[in-house]
Formats: sequence, structure tokens, C-alpha cells
Amino acid sequence: MTTAKEEFQVIFMPSGRRGTAERDEPLLDAARRLGVEIESICGGRLTCAKCKVIVEEGTFAKHGIRSEIGHVSPASDEELDLLARTGSDLVAGCRLSCTALVQGDVLVFVPEESRAHKQVIRKAATERVIDVDPAVRQVYVEVDEAQLGEHRGDWGRLQSALEAQWKLTNLSIDLHVLRRLQPALRKGKWAVTVTLWHDREVIDVQPGYKEGVYGLAVDIGSTTVAGHLCDLRTGEVLASEAIMNPQVTYGEDLMSRVSYAMTNPSGLDKMHGGIIEALNGLAARAARSAGLQIRDINEAVFVGNTTMVHILLGINPQELGGAPFALANRDAMDIKARELGLRFHPAAYVHVLPAEAGHVGADNVAVLIAEEPYRQDPISLIVDVGTNAEILLGNSRRMYSASSPTGPALEGAQISHGMRAATGAIERVRIDPLSWEPRFRVIGEGMWSDEWDTGVNAPLENQPKHLATGICGSGIIEAVAELYLAGIILGDGRFNPDQPHERVQWNGKRGAYILADAGQTSTGQPILVTQDDVRNVQLAKAALYAGAKLLMNRAGIDHIDKITLAGAFGSYIDPKYAMILGLIPDCPLEDVTAVGNAAGDGARIALLNRHKREEAQHYACWVTYIETAIDPDFQNEFVGAIHIPHATDAFPHLESVLQTPLPRPSASNDDGRRERRSERIRERRAKSA
Amino acid sequence: MTTAKEEFQVIFMPSGRRGTAERDEPLLDAARRLGVEIESICGGRLTCAKCKVIVEEGTFAKHGIRSEIGHVSPASDEELDLLARTGSDLVAGCRLSCTALVQGDVLVFVPEESRAHKQVIRKAATERVIDVDPAVRQVYVEVDEAQLGEHRGDWGRLQSALEAQWKLTNLSIDLHVLRRLQPALRKGKWAVTVTLWHDREVIDVQPGYKEGVYGLAVDIGSTTVAGHLCDLRTGEVLASEAIMNPQVTYGEDLMSRVSYAMTNPSGLDKMHGGIIEALNGLAARAARSAGLQIRDINEAVFVGNTTMVHILLGINPQELGGAPFALANRDAMDIKARELGLRFHPAAYVHVLPAEAGHVGADNVAVLIAEEPYRQDPISLIVDVGTNAEILLGNSRRMYSASSPTGPALEGAQISHGMRAATGAIERVRIDPLSWEPRFRVIGEGMWSDEWDTGVNAPLENQPKHLATGICGSGIIEAVAELYLAGIILGDGRFNPDQPHERVQWNGKRGAYILADAGQTSTGQPILVTQDDVRNVQLAKAALYAGAKLLMNRAGIDHIDKITLAGAFGSYIDPKYAMILGLIPDCPLEDVTAVGNAAGDGARIALLNRHKREEAQHYACWVTYIETAIDPDFQNEFVGAIHIPHATDAFPHLESVLQTPLPRPSASNDDGRRERRSERIRERRAKSA
Repeated sequence: MTTAKEEFQVIFMPSGRRGTAERDEPLLDAARRLGVEIESICGGRLTCAKCKVIVEEGTFAKHGIRSEIGHVSPASDEELDLLARTGSDLVAGCRLSCTALVQGDVLVFVPEESRAHKQVIRKAATERVIDVDPAVRQVYVEVDEAQLGEHRGDWGRLQSALEAQWKLTNLSIDLHVLRRLQPALRKGKWAVTVTLWHDREVIDVQPGYKEGVYGLAVDIGSTTVAGHLCDLRTGEVLASEAIMNPQVTYGEDLMSRVSYAMTNPSGLDKMHGGIIEALNGLAARAARSAGLQIRDINEAVFVGNTTMVHILLGINPQELGGAPFALANRDAMDIKARELGLRFHPAAYVHVLPAEAGHVGADNVAVLIAEEPYRQDPISLIVDVGTNAEILLGNSRRMYSASSPTGPALEGAQISHGMRAATGAIERVRIDPLSWEPRFRVIGEGMWSDEWDTGVNAPLENQPKHLATGICGSGIIEAVAELYLAGIILGDGRFNPDQPHERVQWNGKRGAYILADAGQTSTGQPILVTQDDVRNVQLAKAALYAGAKLLMNRAGIDHIDKITLAGAFGSYIDPKYAMILGLIPDCPLEDVTAVGNAAGDGARIALLNRHKREEAQHYACWVTYIETAIDPDFQNEFVGAIHIPHATDAFPHLESVLQTPLPRPSASNDDGRRERRSERIRERRAKSA
Repeated sequence: MTTAKEEFQVIFMPSGRRGTAERDEPLLDAARRLGVEIESICGGRLTCAKCKVIVEEGTFAKHGIRSEIGHVSPASDEELDLLARTGSDLVAGCRLSCTALVQGDVLVFVPEESRAHKQVIRKAATERVIDVDPAVRQVYVEVDEAQLGEHRGDWGRLQSALEAQWKLTNLSIDLHVLRRLQPALRKGKWAVTVTLWHDREVIDVQPGYKEGVYGLAVDIGSTTVAGHLCDLRTGEVLASEAIMNPQVTYGEDLMSRVSYAMTNPSGLDKMHGGIIEALNGLAARAARSAGLQIRDINEAVFVGNTTMVHILLGINPQELGGAPFALANRDAMDIKARELGLRFHPAAYVHVLPAEAGHVGADNVAVLIAEEPYRQDPISLIVDVGTNAEILLGNSRRMYSASSPTGPALEGAQISHGMRAATGAIERVRIDPLSWEPRFRVIGEGMWSDEWDTGVNAPLENQPKHLATGICGSGIIEAVAELYLAGIILGDGRFNPDQPHERVQWNGKRGAYILADAGQTSTGQPILVTQDDVRNVQLAKAALYAGAKLLMNRAGIDHIDKITLAGAFGSYIDPKYAMILGLIPDCPLEDVTAVGNAAGDGARIALLNRHKREEAQHYACWVTYIETAIDPDFQNEFVGAIHIPHATDAFPHLESVLQTPLPRPSASNDDGRRERRSERIRERRAKSA
């Protein structure tokens, strides 16, 4: 007689993949079963140490589930030896996933280096036209030689030379530079290259004539930290790097991090230390790939949401966790990088852009100065979707901003088979309106799923390189929109109970659509879109829409001239589907554009042009912030936006979207199907009208 | 047959006492034999650990002698255990002197806590009248409560309140204070006490109404570091502390420290780290004795000679070691205390007064603002004697300054039986001009030596508490002057070869006077004043006099209205003897005054009054510095000042000094002797005229 084995909850971060594991299942096996790809070369023979994971200590609220301390088997001596030899941080809970066995509910963080497939992150900085006029510049200067009977001191003589040759007065000098001044002057035979910050402070002195000032612009996202290393003379991007924000281990959304800082005495220190180390790592890597060293970085500009900026500065974000959401500081700050523990040039400054309000931070101000809606007459709606959506609305006369609690569904989290936009994620979905048969495309694989041949004897070119492991943000949006267009779900989001189909499973009154069958997935389990997934997408899109609508109401605006989608979300989703689902208000489709990481671009702009910093400070205060959390109008709009929209008067442009055949990957003998489909849509919409 | 044991050189710092020790003599025994008093309770039983010393590693040039690495016996396990248990720094070469055996030439530093008798240091700050108007002040302010729909942030709201209630604008806030702002506002129910620096920067925020801002004024001498902790509201001195400068282990005079920094790669770091730790210790002790903590210190003002200030700031002083003696920076500086590693309040500043030139530093500027000769019409000569003498001359119309290389003889160093002004040092000397019998008084003992009864059965009140262990600065000056007055040495400094006497020993042509016989000393060896000692005093006094004379020549001044003796030297020596030896130019004796540690007073004045800092910066540049090192006039004056002066026209006031009976400790039946003596002096001076 076999007794049923005990089962435990296992969650893998940062993907958020979850599932159950039997007692004593190795973490590596559980991960693979759940579609979390962890690298492993030796296959558990304790030699490669590639499969390192961090088993979280403490109790964290993650997606409403709590994982407790120490619910994995203790490490053997061999494992400890290997971990120690490979420089692992045992204190942080580092383990080898091939030998750590599940013995309770457990939360596991898979560090970037252990992931089999790295995240897809837009690395290249958008090529924007920026006037290069940075805060840091170099001047070459010839200094009077020290001589007996003349007592100004070397710094006094350098000041005199800078005034005479460059009209620079009232300068100060960083202590670290003063320490190196005398040898530099003598080595350079009294000619030096001086690096200045805002023409106010000397932040470097090098012997002789030297060229090269470098800056780093970083967007510190809740999940991703992306930086561009720039040549401050040419404005050229020399290197771009992106890494996961290590704070993800302390909670995926902002509120969990705020509460981690509030409830753990060393919580803030850990998160602060984590992001500083991450920034040092990112900067060092960027410098290396540009043939530089981290200490060549003369200045940095950082942006991020208010919680990220508070933690970056070592300020407890707890006030942001509840009304009235008071910021410690709204204004821009200049801080010595070394004060934060950053290993840039010892005299380098960090400039942090200002915030607008408790929930709209420096990242949104960066979007503002990158997009400059305040210089334009057409009315812009700028939407930057992350775990919170930041929304800007207005034109040169007036701008409004708001933050809307969309939750992480649009990023692929809180979706039963959701995952971030990584290799294996379903990112495109089509459902035949007649047969209800799906086709999809996964990241990292060029072919649509209906072109795959997964048979053992299939020609190599027909075998997919990557099977599906989950659904990412753009995938879930397309899936829900296509489910609606095919009539599988109704306008209120319910699965249509009147049309049974083999693709739809029922669990009581809750349907689920089989998007990928077992043979198409890396886990060997089908990938479903469940009723809960549809609900979560509905909540997210209603929040986003309600936020935009609230701003329109406040501004007395009834139409929008252009919509700008910022951030990764905007780059990956198809605006048509966003409009079909009603994520964004009505607007001519050709006026909806994606601009990529506008926050990162704004940071780079502020790095390269100091006047843009003044502009940021000015417009951050000029924008009228609307607090969604307390506005009854917001609740009202939110409730009204839960349904998937009809083509009513409120959505004149939606009608044209639906009349237009949706894009197909190949035009090959598809005309008939496309026509039938359009016809069917028109029919159904006529009925429901 | 006994073979003669090997002998080695042993030097004890900071006293500079030296002598030979046989192989395998414990350091503690050698120390006691040489009059260096090291504490020991257990007497070598390895339990008390009171006798710790630091055996210097590396090779140091000290008084021309080199001591090599590792010339003591290795530590036993028991010693290592005890050292470890008592928190000793084994890396720094800490050993127990009772068990470490001499096995080569060795340089030993006796840390302050191991010394049986602490140094005599003038601790109380002179009571000067100072307008209290410090750079740091506190204001109480009521701040608007954070509320929804208002987005200034807590710092923005605090700024608004400070502007409305105190007319304070353009403020910045230290990052460390910003980190604590939100809890402080809430704990204080939106009322806080704000500490401001120069009304420019917020350097503390405390909940509710709080009183108390504190500052530390420190004079960093080459040998002694003396600090006053002050209440910045009242100006009151709450505590005074003085400690040895730990850099003494790296060389007693400035040049040895400069060369240590030049020749040892980590030399600067060690000396910088040493002084910072010493300052932390001094500050913590001062705070404790005032019932405060070190982090209650809101600001500090530091002064010191240029080498000390360079090392304090972590700047290599090597340029000060040779012409043209270029300072890294002449101007005053404000630096965050934390940047230097000082554990004051995390936002506290350190203000360092400016220097005048490469050899006249912030300490002399402090003397300048304390004495304010620039506000006076009479012509002042201000002399601050240390290892270098700094000299100021002038009045409200013009001031000159110079530094004169007196060497350490006037401080009791480079004297064969010299020592610092500590218990047991001979500080007063009288020699009977007829009998040539000496009388002396030692520090820590009220009776003159001719009242001592050292016999076994002597009544307790007649037994001296302390025997003589050496001669300090004031003692050697009086000894040489009295030797001259008694005719034992001649005007050119030679021992008079024509009058043999039992008190004078001869070694070839070099005489030596027995000042204390074996029974009067703690070492059981007589204390002599040798021909070399007299020569060293002559060189020192000639340098001092030549410096003053050079300034008089430059200034076109032929008389001085008053002489101010600053520093410990000035407090301990009798101005009459200084004038007899010709240390200082001619001046009415009643116009020669000692002002104690004027540099420390100046530091305190700058701490308590921020306008005095501007005055310091102004007058530091206003004073005309004369470089003695390259002036042919200086050499000329120096050579002319080697002899002990006659009462010529150049010294009209010396005549009156010599006519006046010298002071006696007791007037009891001394009249006859005094009369005889005056007569004899007149006779001799008439002859030599």
C-alpha cells in the first residue's frame, strides 16, 4: 500500500511560476516541471554549481501566499564545500537546486546567472536627438609653478589659472581630488585636465591633456534595472546593460517591498544594499564592455518610481504605503556616489530626478522630459504600464498625472500560467473564430505553433527550438481579446456556457481555454487561460482605463489626439488588442505609438543635458497630480470599465479596428478565413448591440 | 669566566628616553632603569596586561638612530592569549613589556594607558570673552501635516515652514537627516527642532522641542592633541581632553613624519588613520565626561600645523618636506566629519582654519585670531614654540610671520637627560654662584631638592614623593642660564676650563655638570647637563631669536612693545630666563606674558563665532610670510645669536633683569645669599663688558 506523499507549495521568483511539489522532490526537478528553466551542466553530480538558487528566509507575502523559513533539506558538507568554493553567499540562503529537497512550502529566487534563458530586455537606447550639454565637462589648464615666497597653495594656484584661462570662479574641490592634486600637477609639469561639475566643483584633476568624461543613466524599475553608459562629450551610448532588480526577492510589487521595509528591522538595509550592489555590478559591466573601468564614471542620473528612489537613497518607504502617501522629498537631489556606496569615480555625483507625488516618481518625470507633451498643442495621453500604470494627460497648457493600480497581470504575473517576457513565453495568440483552434508564437521561436512539427521524425527546420512554458503580458492580452472575438468569452468576461467545446474545460461554472496542449509545452502540461486569468486582465485594464478617464474628466477633455505607450508593455503589445480590450481610451489607431523605455531615455537626456534637469524640476511641480486612490470618480469609471467594450459611441475608432482584418503572420491562402472571420465578428457584434 | 653580554640600543617613545639594554633584558626592566614609568600590577605574572607597549615594526629614522624590525623575543602562547583577551592589536606590534626580551636595537612606544604617570597638559581652556555666534544653531518649527492632494513631500513642507517661521530660504538637507525626517515629524506630531549649519543646511531634525548643540575645538599638535567640547549656545566649555598624537610613533618631529609618508607606501594611511582614531577617542571621552555621546557633536573646528592638517585630511605632506614648501590648499575647508571617518553626528561638519604658508599653519592663524594683534597699535611679537617656532610680529598696520626651526631641545628632547614635562622632570633649577651647588624642583613634588631627605629613617614629610627622572624644557633653560650666571659656562657656551670643580666632569675638552646625583634620581644614575645639551639649547634659542630679528628687520621695526609667549613652552618657562639666554628680543619684562594654548583658544573662538572664521581667512592671507629657510639675513642673525648675550645696547632690559634678584621659592633666610649672588653677577658682567 502506498501512502499519498505530502505536497507543498513552491514558487519560483522572479518568474512567479508556482505549483506543488512532493516532499523530497529536488528544487531543480520542481522548477523544470513548472517550466522554470534553471541551468545545470553536471545534472546533480555536485560539480558544476550552475543551478544555484536562493531559498528565501523569513516570511513574505507573495501573491497572497506565505512561504515559511527553512522548508528545504539541510545542505550536505559536499554541497557547502562546493558553494563555498564557488563564492556563494551562504548567509543569503544560496543552495544548489539539484540537491536541496522540498520539505515545506518554499519560495525560491532563481538568480540571473542560474537562468537557462536570460530575460528579453530592450537594451539599445532609443536614438533620440539630444543637445549634449552635460553637467560634467573637462578643461585643460596651465598652472603657475609653485615657488618660494608665493603661498597660495596648489589649489589656490589652480583656481587662479581656471579663472584666468576659463573665467571659472567660486569653485570648490572635492577632498578626494585635493588629495591627488599635488602629484597630478607635478606629473603633468603644471598642466592638468580638470573635470568640473556644473562649473562649480572640481571633481577630477589629471596630469597633462586628457579626454574622456563618462556618465551613466539608469532607470531603476521594480523588476528591471536598465542603464546606459554614455560618452558625455559626444552623447554616444557606449554600452547598455540591464539586470534584474535584486529587491524582487523581497516582493514582486511595490507594496510587498514597502511592507518588507516596515516589518523587518533590517529590511530597508537589505533592499538598499541590494540595489547598490546591483548598480555597482551593472556599472562595472557597462564600463567593461566600453573598455573602461567603473571609476571612470564621472556622473550618474537615476530615475525610478518613488519607492525605488526612497530605497535607493536609504529612506524607509513606509509612508508611501498608506494615505496620505507622503514623500520624504519631492525635489531633485545631487548626492556623492560614494555616499551611497557606489564605486564610481570617488568624486562623482548622482543626480536623482524629482518626483511629482507619492505615486508618480522620477521615472514618470523622465518620461515627461523625454516626450515633452508640455511643448505640444495636441492632447497626449502617455501611459507607462508596470505594476502600477503611470498616466500623463495634457498639452502645453496643462498636464495631469495619475497612478493607477493595474497590478502585475499585464506583465504576465497573477496569471495561472503567466510568466515574464522571457524565452518560451507565448507572446502572440490567434483563435480561429469558427473552429476555436488556437495558434500562438513563443518568444525565441520564429514559427507559429500551427507550423510546428513535434514528431520524432520531423524535419529539423519544422521542429520548434522552444516549446511554450507560459504566457507573458502581450500574450494574455491577445488571448483574452481573441477569446472575446471568437465568442468563447462574453462581454462581461464569463466563458460562454452555451457553447461546449473540447478546447474549453469546465470546473463548475468556471471555464478554462486550452491554449497550448501538453505536446506543445516544455512542462508536458497544457497551458490554460482560466476564468481567473480573464478576471485579472479585466481588473487591470479597467484600472488603466479608469485612470485615463479620470484624468480626462478632471481636465474636461473629451478626446485624445495621440496615445503614447511607454515601457516594455507598450513595446510588446499590439495596440489593436489593447483597444479591443479597452485598455486605453478611444483614439485613431495610427496615433497610438510605442516609444520603448521612455523613462530610461529621460534619464539619459537629463544626464546629457543639465538644462533638462531644471526642466524636470519645473514640470514635476507644474503637472497636476490626481490621486486615484481617494477619488469616487475613479471607482465609478473603474466599475464601468470592467466589461470588454462594445463599439458604442464612446469607441468610434474601435469600430474601424474591428472592420480591419487583424494582422496575420503569413498572408498565404488566408483570405477566405479572414473574410469569414470578419463576417462572423460583424454578426456577433450586431447581435449584441 | 663570564663573557660580556651583548648590548643593544633601546628607545622609548614618546618620552624619547634611550639607553642600552643587555640581550634578553625584559623591556619593562629596561624602561624602569631608563626612567620610563610603565604601569604593571602583576609584576610579570601575565595576569594584569597593564604593561602593554608597541614594538615598532619597520625602520624609522629617530634622532638619527635606526631601529630594525623584530628585535625582541617572540611572544609565547600565554602572552598572545592574554593580549587577545584584552583586545590588543597584535598586528600593530602590541606586546607585554614584562615578557618581551630585548634581542636587538629596538624602538618601543608606550601607549598612554600603559604610562604610570600621565602627561601634564594644560587642560582648562583659557577663559576668554567670546561673542557666541556659532555656525550651528537650532530652531523649533511647526510643519504642515502631510495630507492627500498635497505633494510637496515632508522636506518641502519643512522648507515652507522654515521660510514662513524663520525666514530661512535656499536650504539643503543632509542625506542622513533626510533619512530620519519622516519618523521625526510624526513622532513630534509635526513639530520638530531643526539644527542648521550656517543657515544653509539642515544637519539634524529632532521630534518636538529639543535643546542642545555641541561643538569640539581641537588643536592637533605634533605631540599633543588637545580638545575642548563646548556648548554652542552658551559657549561654555563642558569638557577638555588632551591625548598624545599617536603619530609620535612615526617620528617625533615634522620632518620625520613627512619622510615616513614619503618612504612608506602606507605611511600616510597609517598616520591619517592614527590621528582620526585619536580624535574619535578624544571626542568620545570629552562627550562622556560632559554626559553626552560622541554623536551629539554637531560641529568641530580643527587647527594644527600644515603637516598635521595635511595628514588629517589624508593629503600626503611630502611637498612640505622641501622647497618651495607648496601647500595642497591654503584656504579654510568645511568637510563632513563622516568623510574623515569621525564618528560625530552623522551630518556634522569639520571646519579647518586656513594656513598662511607652507610652514605656518592653521594653528598659527588660530593664535592670530585669539590674540588679534591686527586690532592693536602697540607692536606685538607673538612666539609659539614647539618643534618649530611660529613667530608673528606687527600691529594693525602690518603683520609678518615666520617659522623658525628651533628643533625639539626647548621641549626637553635632544637633551641627554631630557624628557617631556611629565612627573619627575626637573622643571626649576638654581645654582649657587659661589658654591656651584644646585637645587632643583621636579614636577609632581612640592619641595626643592635641598629640602629632600632621602635617608631610610627620614620623616615622611621630608621624603620626596618623586625623585628626578630627567630634565624638561623649562628645566634645561634654567639650568643653562644658571650655569652661565654662575660662571660655570662661558658666554660662548663652553664649560669654563679654568675652574675645576667636583660638580663638573670632563671628557676631553667637553665638560658636563652634575645637576642631580645618583641618590636624587629614580634611575640611580646622576643627571648631567652636558656640553652637547648646552649646544642644543644655544642652537634652538639662536633660531628663535634670529626668526624674530629677521621679522623686525623686514618690518623695519627696532623695538617691540609686548611679547606674547603662546603654547606650553610659554606657560612653563620663566620669561626672565628666556631673556637671560636671549631666546627673545629685548622688551620690558613686565610686557612679556604667557597666554597658554592660544592655538586651542583660537580654535574654540572659531567654533563659537562664525565671523571669526571669515576674519581668519582674511588675516591668514593678509599677513606677510617671510621664509626663513632661504633668507641670508636669517643665517646671519642666527650665527650672531649663538652666544649668550651680554647686556649690550641691544639688550637694555636684560640689564634690569640681572639687577633684579631672581625669584626664590621661599624667602627664608636667603637674603645674604641673594645679595652675594647679585654682587658676583655684577662683577662678572663688568669684567666681560
